[in-house]
Amino acid sequence: MKINVVKNVLDANDALAGENRRRLDEAGAWCVNLTSAPGSGKTTLLERTLPVLVREGLSCAVIVGDLQTTRDADRLGALDVPVTQINTEGGCHLSAPQIAEALQGLPLSTLRYVFIENVGNMVCPAGFDLGEHARVAMLSVPEGDDKIAKYNTLFQPADAILLNKIDLVEMLGYDTARVYDDLKRVNTAAPVIELSCRTGEGLDAWLDWLRRRKTRPYAK
Amino acid sequence: MKINVVKNVLDANDALAGENRRRLDEAGAWCVNLTSAPGSGKTTLLERTLPVLVREGLSCAVIVGDLQTTRDADRLGALDVPVTQINTEGGCHLSAPQIAEALQGLPLSTLRYVFIENVGNMVCPAGFDLGEHARVAMLSVPEGDDKIAKYNTLFQPADAILLNKIDLVEMLGYDTARVYDDLKRVNTAAPVIELSCRTGEGLDAWLDWLRRRKTRPYAK
Repeated sequence: MKINVVKNVLDANDALAGENRRRLDEAGAWCVNLTSAPGSGKTTLLERTLPVLVREGLSCAVIVGDLQTTRDADRLGALDVPVTQINTEGGCHLSAPQIAEALQGLPLSTLRYVFIENVGNMVCPAGFDLGEHARVAMLSVPEGDDKIAKYNTLFQPADAILLNKIDLVEMLGYDTARVYDDLKRVNTAAPVIELSCRTGEGLDAWLDWLRRRKTRPYAK
Repeated sequence: MKINVVKNVLDANDALAGENRRRLDEAGAWCVNLTSAPGSGKTTLLERTLPVLVREGLSCAVIVGDLQTTRDADRLGALDVPVTQINTEGGCHLSAPQIAEALQGLPLSTLRYVFIENVGNMVCPAGFDLGEHARVAMLSVPEGDDKIAKYNTLFQPADAILLNKIDLVEMLGYDTARVYDDLKRVNTAAPVIELSCRTGEGLDAWLDWLRRRKTRPYAK
């Protein structure tokens, strides 16, 4: 009984995720689902990313999921892009129906990128297709160098992996080689982009990845 | 339908959690449910805590939940205490039935403390009573100073709140006052213990809290 219900929920989610992707494709907007643990730096990454893209004429919008507050939306609202907040009321991940509703409120045909900032959680968001074109999974140095293997369900389906806060590698004795070694068993296809949203190091590589993805046809 | 199923699962969990608590009470073992985001430092905290308690004749055991690997259990196995690993196979939190099974394998009547290291997740573990006597919710400085308000369901029911990695406060511009301000609206009863597992600062306060809880009758 329980398993059937869960399967139905996932089937319904995936069907609607396909719808979301079709809508985005028709509008010509390319969508990123950004996932990480709480406090890895998703909002800060978007704060650093969006102004650069917008300056280049690449218009953006953000859909941001939060359990309770509007703090991330407030931070992103200070940028000059449409921001839609999804309050999950304690829910542990975003789902395709929530994204479908959020997309209705966005001027899709004018957008090149739609960034989805998922709920901070290394477990549950992994199981839910939202209709994105690419999944980006971020980890951060202070979380420790064992996260790829421990939370492999998040990193296995990722199209790109961001390693944030690399300015702290030396101070915290972080073993970057261990991350790459674990990735050999988890995900060998995704590029790993090391960066620091604080110092700005590595942000160019991330922006280049975004720019190149946008100009290529994407097949899910 | 879905809601009923979820409610039944929670009811069954809570009933078994009560059983777990009774079993622990009868054995005279006091149980902590330790929750945090991935990489806040739960395992490291236990590595620093257990040897001190054991040296004082306060015997300990650990039940540790992980999605995939045995890495935390391996680390804790290096200490001289019984360690039971629960592999959740992708599951996002521990549940009372899993703890019931783990308790069967522990020499409960010889133990003073049972530490449960939950899955690294600031959302889902909040909803599941495991039969613990106290919940300890940890946050860490690199996660940012906005986590109490954003993940309030984790911090609201906590009996103690640990703020780890305080050696990084100044370097990362962490606003500790913001944490205390948010706590006024979330949890005014739990003590906040600031510590650094890396430098050892604050660990005495945490150990004192544990020692005092053990010697007092506990009412859930």
